[in-house]
Amino acid sequence: MNIIILTELDQIEPQTYRLDDFRADHIRNVLKPETGDSLKIGILNGPKGMGTVVSITDQAVVLKVTDLVDVTANTTNIDLICALPRPQTLKKVLLISAMMNVRSLHLVRANRVEKSYYHSPVLKPENQYGHLIEGLSQGGHTRLPEVYIHDRFRVFFEDYLQQLTIDGEHPVRLIPDPEAETTMSGLTKGSSAVQLAIGPEGGWVPFEVELMQNIGFVPVILSRSILRVEYAVTAVLAQLELELS
Amino acid sequence: MNIIILTELDQIEPQTYRLDDFRADHIRNVLKPETGDSLKIGILNGPKGMGTVVSITDQAVVLKVTDLVDVTANTTNIDLICALPRPQTLKKVLLISAMMNVRSLHLVRANRVEKSYYHSPVLKPENQYGHLIEGLSQGGHTRLPEVYIHDRFRVFFEDYLQQLTIDGEHPVRLIPDPEAETTMSGLTKGSSAVQLAIGPEGGWVPFEVELMQNIGFVPVILSRSILRVEYAVTAVLAQLELELS
Repeated sequence: MNIIILTELDQIEPQTYRLDDFRADHIRNVLKPETGDSLKIGILNGPKGMGTVVSITDQAVVLKVTDLVDVTANTTNIDLICALPRPQTLKKVLLISAMMNVRSLHLVRANRVEKSYYHSPVLKPENQYGHLIEGLSQGGHTRLPEVYIHDRFRVFFEDYLQQLTIDGEHPVRLIPDPEAETTMSGLTKGSSAVQLAIGPEGGWVPFEVELMQNIGFVPVILSRSILRVEYAVTAVLAQLELELS
Repeated sequence: MNIIILTELDQIEPQTYRLDDFRADHIRNVLKPETGDSLKIGILNGPKGMGTVVSITDQAVVLKVTDLVDVTANTTNIDLICALPRPQTLKKVLLISAMMNVRSLHLVRANRVEKSYYHSPVLKPENQYGHLIEGLSQGGHTRLPEVYIHDRFRVFFEDYLQQLTIDGEHPVRLIPDPEAETTMSGLTKGSSAVQLAIGPEGGWVPFEVELMQNIGFVPVILSRSILRVEYAVTAVLAQLELELS
């Protein structure tokens, strides 16, 4: 945990937060502060700052929050679209999305997605939350990615995605594709939003790629290596960050 | 498995290989070919090609290898240096190194490495092999990364690393560092070798960074996010591939 994420539910009086779950354990057992020490904190979907340890007992840790700084920075918004991955991979994709400050994650049905994945418990929001919070704590961010599940491939790309685009945003749309001939180099400079579409194991089928290309998605090569989904997601977000920096 | 890795030990006669382990299981249960079908194969530390299924039984799969193509391509050699990570992370770093075609992986002692990690069973070559082969099979490569463990930080950087450099190579040396002010953009173009030094959780201590800078390592920022070790490794290799392409 590089920052401790605090929520409204933890607040016991103004600027004061009481933790009694895994975060309290982490503070006691890993960070091991004394009363009066300061820890890095972030308010969920809010500012970052410092939390001074008011008290630390076996029951709870109480933090007084100071030095709050707004972090709704002027960054490029990234919307990640993934063909629904296998449940163990989905947990990692949730963590990575939060860790790398993705705005929204869209899990879509696709031809090569195994049918059993649609019934995974990880599709329930209550089973996603922990992975997202863990990602925010690791990455040092406070914005919780919005996670959506889309049952209909064509409806998602042809209708929903158009509406997703916020007024004034002109998203660059990229599909990592091992057969593509160009990298993302130079494609995203100065853009206010980027949409990335990560295929399933085995890749998108031609019909899917064609439909995405028709609405402006550009195939780009990510690597000469064939990457597992969680590493493909990491790689594309890392390359994008280098391009946008 | 995007390619089936074959070794000398599997060879039963010229061009013919017999598999009876997890690779045979994968062929039978996932790829499900008929006799006469062709699968993508790679010879460990050798060429890639196709393997025609000669026979497939509950005991073994026999492949006849054809269309071998040399893959010792004219690529930049990447040597990855990692402060010894926790055992579960090390398994991932081994897989990623092979998947992303790293030439050598150097696991070094560092100030913030927990002492217990030096006694991990994953440090034994026989416990690394499976993760490396899995990485090659995923990434589509055949070159097994060489893995070394270095007990002395200073000796490694000041003596060993100089000798590691092959005649005529002038490696670019990078340290991903969240405090750095520049990215790797433009630093590696045209270089024949790159050495990357990934710190432990909590980062290198100032003495370590100073020593590395003295021998030419340049701090670069990878991301505004703080990445877990396995994702930092993926991110730096992905950015490097974009830069070198």
